[in-house]
Amino acid sequence: MARKIKTNDPDILNLAKLVDGPKSILYLKEDLIAYDCDGFTIHKHLPKAVVFPKNTEEVAKIVNYCASHDLPFLARGAGTGLSGGAIPINGEVIISMVRMKRLISVDLENRRAVVEPGYVNLKLTNMIADKGYYYAPDPSSQSCCTIGGNVAENAGGAHCLKYGVTTNHILGLEVVLPNGDIIDINCEGIADVPGYDLLGLLTGSEGTLGIVTKITVRILKNPEAKQTVLAYFDEVSDGSYAVSDIVSAGIVPAALEMMDKTAIEGVEAAAFPVGHPRDIAALLLIEVDGISAGIDEQINQILDICKRRHVREVKVAENEQERARWWANRKTGFGAMGAISADYLVQDGVIPRSKLPEVLERINQISEQFGLRIANIFHAGDGNLHPLVLFDARIPGETEKALEAGSACLKACADVGGSITGEHGVGIEKMEEMRFVFNEEELAAQTRIREVFNPDNLLNGGKLFPSPGRCVEVKKNMKEVASAKQA
Amino acid sequence: MARKIKTNDPDILNLAKLVDGPKSILYLKEDLIAYDCDGFTIHKHLPKAVVFPKNTEEVAKIVNYCASHDLPFLARGAGTGLSGGAIPINGEVIISMVRMKRLISVDLENRRAVVEPGYVNLKLTNMIADKGYYYAPDPSSQSCCTIGGNVAENAGGAHCLKYGVTTNHILGLEVVLPNGDIIDINCEGIADVPGYDLLGLLTGSEGTLGIVTKITVRILKNPEAKQTVLAYFDEVSDGSYAVSDIVSAGIVPAALEMMDKTAIEGVEAAAFPVGHPRDIAALLLIEVDGISAGIDEQINQILDICKRRHVREVKVAENEQERARWWANRKTGFGAMGAISADYLVQDGVIPRSKLPEVLERINQISEQFGLRIANIFHAGDGNLHPLVLFDARIPGETEKALEAGSACLKACADVGGSITGEHGVGIEKMEEMRFVFNEEELAAQTRIREVFNPDNLLNGGKLFPSPGRCVEVKKNMKEVASAKQA
Repeated sequence: MARKIKTNDPDILNLAKLVDGPKSILYLKEDLIAYDCDGFTIHKHLPKAVVFPKNTEEVAKIVNYCASHDLPFLARGAGTGLSGGAIPINGEVIISMVRMKRLISVDLENRRAVVEPGYVNLKLTNMIADKGYYYAPDPSSQSCCTIGGNVAENAGGAHCLKYGVTTNHILGLEVVLPNGDIIDINCEGIADVPGYDLLGLLTGSEGTLGIVTKITVRILKNPEAKQTVLAYFDEVSDGSYAVSDIVSAGIVPAALEMMDKTAIEGVEAAAFPVGHPRDIAALLLIEVDGISAGIDEQINQILDICKRRHVREVKVAENEQERARWWANRKTGFGAMGAISADYLVQDGVIPRSKLPEVLERINQISEQFGLRIANIFHAGDGNLHPLVLFDARIPGETEKALEAGSACLKACADVGGSITGEHGVGIEKMEEMRFVFNEEELAAQTRIREVFNPDNLLNGGKLFPSPGRCVEVKKNMKEVASAKQA
Repeated sequence: MARKIKTNDPDILNLAKLVDGPKSILYLKEDLIAYDCDGFTIHKHLPKAVVFPKNTEEVAKIVNYCASHDLPFLARGAGTGLSGGAIPINGEVIISMVRMKRLISVDLENRRAVVEPGYVNLKLTNMIADKGYYYAPDPSSQSCCTIGGNVAENAGGAHCLKYGVTTNHILGLEVVLPNGDIIDINCEGIADVPGYDLLGLLTGSEGTLGIVTKITVRILKNPEAKQTVLAYFDEVSDGSYAVSDIVSAGIVPAALEMMDKTAIEGVEAAAFPVGHPRDIAALLLIEVDGISAGIDEQINQILDICKRRHVREVKVAENEQERARWWANRKTGFGAMGAISADYLVQDGVIPRSKLPEVLERINQISEQFGLRIANIFHAGDGNLHPLVLFDARIPGETEKALEAGSACLKACADVGGSITGEHGVGIEKMEEMRFVFNEEELAAQTRIREVFNPDNLLNGGKLFPSPGRCVEVKKNMKEVASAKQA
């Protein structure tokens, strides 16, 4: 980074003074390009600057400066979000949290840890593993995503079926509000907070209500044992029914994942191939954890159910190494699509489990209708689908077609009483699709909350809720990104 | 109820027209007296009227009428709340939900049921028990409290240690907002809702943000087996350490309850005596559930821990009958205090589990300082204390002393990083104590939310947050109630 500020822009000069000078701010176009999008790459926009505060006070100063100078701003963690929540669509000042990455304290007795928002998800588990504890939410990006970002998006993960998503593991937050106030919601405290559930409200608010600067999380004791089952099916519907049967039997697996043929093609072509047969229709990856004595019985039940549902082959991981390989293979999931397609768009719909066969069939129809392959790799146990629409942005019109196909998949979810996001958030990707699940009054109840916290909409504005002008502008920019790729 | 309206009050006449006429409204003083308080009996105030709508549309009409005529109003379930949330301190029109008590649907496959707010908590479990399912939140008042009231207060219960409080079991809500809008947050849908967490925000908002008219709850499969342990200790600290040891061992009991000597004296004098020895210092009631194979191992661990902590006697329930008797004895808890004291005030503090011995000792000191007996009967596993301050309101000044002692107990909880309510809510009882855990900015962030939903504060106004005038007025009325009792 530059040692001296090479611009006369007074905002840049002033912002630099609020942090540690030139080494804590980026403002040159070549530096800003890395921040023009997040994990949702279809829309790009350059920020005005990126600042790197090192503590809460600096965050509050930056927020105060932006608020009083009418500069839009937003917070960014590792930038792995999948719905565009960290994209500076208004040329925001990005407040990067990556230097606020301390593990502040661990309190094993009361099962909690306090971290800064830039702390990487998996590091927490790694730090406490030898004491027999872990942090449960495990998004596929857990080796690089930050807990602050997880809070913003209410991130999920494979093991959220049994253990719940991020919001179920947040005990306290310190937050800088858009007016510069610093509030502490139970950050040094315990699980129950009187009054309105601000913790729940801020968690998953996609960076539009405040900037989280400290997080108290729940940590869990490692289960005594875990066992993992891999099952190959010749029919998707048999796999789907097996999912229903397992849950109906009263088993709550720690994870219950499904991949279809196209998804398997992808993960087998990526970094951690397992050797799955290529001609199966679907696989299930099922993990059970708990007390050793109880697990064997559950595993036997699961094997029986798979057999009744005509499984071609089913096996239990023989050791931790095999289990880890199966999971590494699963977790390459989305990125692996790059091995079989120029581009992909991941969707994130949720449906009642009982509708699984019906909705997977509908997604098949959408794939045929748009002439685009759609891979399915998802958290089957909680009905959280991830249709991956494969396309090639270099082909004129295909980006738009992919977006339409993705939207149709979400409509299919909403139509069976489902939802348009389970763990990736709405961001700029699904603003219009919010209308699939909410009417005007319901949207108004939400936007009024934003107005309270964020009256000028300077903090991460123009996201999360449909606003016709904004959606049109984003769609227009998406077309431009597509055109640029074709050129 | 009267067949003809015997008043010329135009509001009463108009409200009657919005429901089924005279049989759906109470307005005579003798009828209103039953509604002058809820489970928090220290403050009383007559409502203007009580109306009994039979569906959402009637609720919306009543709300619209009140809003446009500047009449304060509030919703009431069974009136078992313990912090005064349903007391009409402003002479509200009470909207009673007791006629909206249908079980609308049960969907076992997707583990959810839809109920009206007046549906009684325990009825749901009774309705689905033969199919092998149950509804988890189990406040001690579950045989009469309504699920609507549980949502308002985010009610807990003995089994919330493992299964979570009400908010963890709410999948959707239909709500009439104070402006008359009816919003449906995922009422026919599934677990994940995009946008801000309105479900979480409304659950536990103590009837100040909207009136819930339909509720989708999660239902759970019955555990395969459960076993219950009763352990008697000669020292409170031994019991406290046993609690810590059990949780540290990685066991998550379904319930982990504690009662001290005074509490035992009460429950043994009430409807379901068990024959607990009267000379012990504390007992633990511990329940483990799950897969049969795993439970025996956990029970053995628990017995070992109790022995290491010098238990005098410990036993496992021999059959369902014995288990049920132990629980019936525990659940008479608060009411049982009536057998040993003229009056009692129940508090509801939460502390980190590791602070249990320290805080119980502090409560002892408070008891001595105020010269009032304090019984402790509480959810030890999640650190949710219920000090019961015993007093006699007929003795001049003793009500005030009890209130002060109760407040001191909550301060003791807050001082160790705890909270002032775990499951009973703030209501009118703990408004001032909110300052123990929140500063002005933090309170402002919450009251701004109320302003959004409830700008004129007509819905259940003057509760939940400290406002000096209001607190003084409530305290004054408490003194009047106390004086009236002495007379």
